[in-house]
Amino acid sequence: MTDKMREGEIALPFDPADRAEARVAFIGRIRSPWSRADCPKNILQARARGLPARIVLDPAYAQALTGLEPGRAIVVLYWMDRGGRGLLVQNPHHVAGQRGTFSIRSPNRPNPICMSTVLITSIDHKSGVIGIDATDAFDGTPVVDIKPWMPRVDVPPGWHPEE
Amino acid sequence: MTDKMREGEIALPFDPADRAEARVAFIGRIRSPWSRADCPKNILQARARGLPARIVLDPAYAQALTGLEPGRAIVVLYWMDRGGRGLLVQNPHHVAGQRGTFSIRSPNRPNPICMSTVLITSIDHKSGVIGIDATDAFDGTPVVDIKPWMPRVDVPPGWHPEE
Repeated sequence: MTDKMREGEIALPFDPADRAEARVAFIGRIRSPWSRADCPKNILQARARGLPARIVLDPAYAQALTGLEPGRAIVVLYWMDRGGRGLLVQNPHHVAGQRGTFSIRSPNRPNPICMSTVLITSIDHKSGVIGIDATDAFDGTPVVDIKPWMPRVDVPPGWHPEE
Repeated sequence: MTDKMREGEIALPFDPADRAEARVAFIGRIRSPWSRADCPKNILQARARGLPARIVLDPAYAQALTGLEPGRAIVVLYWMDRGGRGLLVQNPHHVAGQRGTFSIRSPNRPNPICMSTVLITSIDHKSGVIGIDATDAFDGTPVVDIKPWMPRVDVPPGWHPEE
């Protein structure tokens, strides 16, 4: 860890990967135009670039897409474990000052599960391939879950866009 | 798996836990009023019951909460592995007909990561204990991640509450 750390960053005294208590299966991969070098920083940047992406599931999971159709918003959980898992406080390039890991969306976190809400643009229920409007993940990123986005559940109480 | 299946349900020919390619660390536990028997079905039901809950982090992670304060909405990811991981198509009690696992929010999924968006009601940055307005998880559920909820990122493009 220490060789990757920036000024002001604080790390755990252990690597969470060594304390793992459960196992995650990769259900598929994100296919995107991005390499690590040119990857957008977040889904807004990705969407602004106007290039769509796909989720290619292991065909064994294709039937689990039953009920999802183009136009529907989904939450995609994916696994970005190329960064360190031990940072408690980070000093991101694009913001001033230190940030607690749980207060930012950095992929460097104890469990490197990233999350984005995207729109389904196409879906092949037979092969398990989903077109999505954008992704901030680089090509080949493992996918661990897909959930339907549900505004009544996923928007916190009291929030309104005009606020 | 098969002994738990309802009519019309379809299972994978393997258990995803046996194909696990990455490891998840439990960073803390949810403390809630619920046992498995009386657990609310979703965060809306939980909120309606009016009983708050807490997230008790392993104190080693407390500093990672820096920057989070009461009133802020967070996304909590937790691990609900008491159900089966192999169901592709489910027949939930509360809806008519079969549903693909990735089109519903059931905890029975290849990676049993559940997600809810809640409000911070209190936070102890020293001990790593967070009060939250509600939870649909039963007492002792392991937590795997906490993220700040960010409307520009987490609300899909084009969505508006009046729609």
